[in-house]
Amino acid sequence: MLTLYYSPNACSVASHITLEEIGAPYEAKRVNFGAEQQKSPDYLALNPKARVPTLATARGILTETPAILAFLAQSFPEKKLAPLDDVFAFAELQAVNSYFCSTAHVAHAHKGRGPRWADEESSFADMKRKVPQTMTACFELIENKMLKGPWVMGESFTVADPYLFILTRWAEGDGVELSRFPRVSDHYARMQARPAVKTVLAREAAA
Amino acid sequence: MLTLYYSPNACSVASHITLEEIGAPYEAKRVNFGAEQQKSPDYLALNPKARVPTLATARGILTETPAILAFLAQSFPEKKLAPLDDVFAFAELQAVNSYFCSTAHVAHAHKGRGPRWADEESSFADMKRKVPQTMTACFELIENKMLKGPWVMGESFTVADPYLFILTRWAEGDGVELSRFPRVSDHYARMQARPAVKTVLAREAAA
Repeated sequence: MLTLYYSPNACSVASHITLEEIGAPYEAKRVNFGAEQQKSPDYLALNPKARVPTLATARGILTETPAILAFLAQSFPEKKLAPLDDVFAFAELQAVNSYFCSTAHVAHAHKGRGPRWADEESSFADMKRKVPQTMTACFELIENKMLKGPWVMGESFTVADPYLFILTRWAEGDGVELSRFPRVSDHYARMQARPAVKTVLAREAAA
Repeated sequence: MLTLYYSPNACSVASHITLEEIGAPYEAKRVNFGAEQQKSPDYLALNPKARVPTLATARGILTETPAILAFLAQSFPEKKLAPLDDVFAFAELQAVNSYFCSTAHVAHAHKGRGPRWADEESSFADMKRKVPQTMTACFELIENKMLKGPWVMGESFTVADPYLFILTRWAEGDGVELSRFPRVSDHYARMQARPAVKTVLAREAAA
C-alpha cells in the first residue's frame, strides 16, 4: 500500500488529491511541522530533505511532487491521469509541473521561507514584499500561456490539475487578485467541486 | 530535427550534452543573454518565460530541464538514458532531476539572480553571502544520499548525469569546496572525459 506523508495545505495537497482521485487504498500521515516533526530522526530517515511530500511505496521512498505525480499516473494507467502513450504530450505535462515546482512554488516560498536563502530580517521582509508581484507574474503566465482549459492540459483532467489547485489556493494569501484571472478562477471552482478535493481538504483540516 | 536554444554554461548544458550523447541530428542555437536576446519578441514567442533551455521539436516547443531530459530519454529509448521500463526507477530519476531543478539550481540562482525575488541591494548581498552554505548543503545531500555511483542512478549513465555535471561545474564559483565531496568529484572527472561533454563545452566556449 502507498503511504503519503503530508502537511496540511502544503504542496503535498497535489499528491494527496491525486491519490484520492485514483481511489486505490492508501494511507495519509500528517507530518506536524508545528512540532518540527519533519526534522525528527524517524522522518529524516525517510526523507533527508525534511520536506513533504514523501511517498512510501513497496519499492521504496519517492520525493518531489513532479516525480510523485508522474509515478502515480504511470502506476495507475487505467485512470488516464497523464497522456502516457504520447511522449510529447507527456513532456508538456511534465514541463508544466516542473514550472509549478521550480518557479511558482519557489516564488511563493519567499513569503515565509526566507531563511532558506538569506540571513537578515530586512531581506526576509524585502522578499515577502515582492511575493504579490512574482506570484501575479506566475498567474499571468498560467492564465495566458499554460492553462489550455477547461483543465490545465486541455480536455482531460491530469495530475497537473491538483498541482495548480494548491498554487491557486495559496494565491490570495500571496497577494494575487484572482479576479484578474478568470480562467484560473474557473479551474479553481471546478476543482473545489470534485469529491476527491472535498475529501482531502476535510481530512487535512481535521488532522 | 530538434533545435536546442541554450546559453553557455547555463542549465541548458544538461540538455545540450544529452543531445550530443544521443548522436541524432540536432541544431544548437545560442541565446545571447548579454544582449538580452532572451527578451526579444522572437524568443518570447518561443518561450514566454525568457529562459533557457527551449527545445523546438516537430510537435512544438518544450521547456524546463527535467521535462526535456525525460522527453529525450523517451524519444530515443535505444540509447537507454533512463529506466523507461521500470516506473519506480524512472520516478527515482525524476525525483533527482526535480531536486536539481527546484532546490539546487534555485539555491545557485540566489548568487546572481536576486532581483527575481527581492528589490534591495542589501538583500541581494545577503542572498549571495548565503550561497556557499546552501550549495554546500545541496552537495552534502547529493554526495551522501543521492549519487549512487559511479553514475547518479547507479551502474547506468542517465540524463541525471549531465544535470549533475553542470551543477558541479557551477559549484566552485558558488563557494563549494569540491575536495570535501570525493564521489561528486569522481563523477565530475568522468563526465569531463566523455567525448560528448568535450564537444559541448568546446562549442559553447566558441559561441
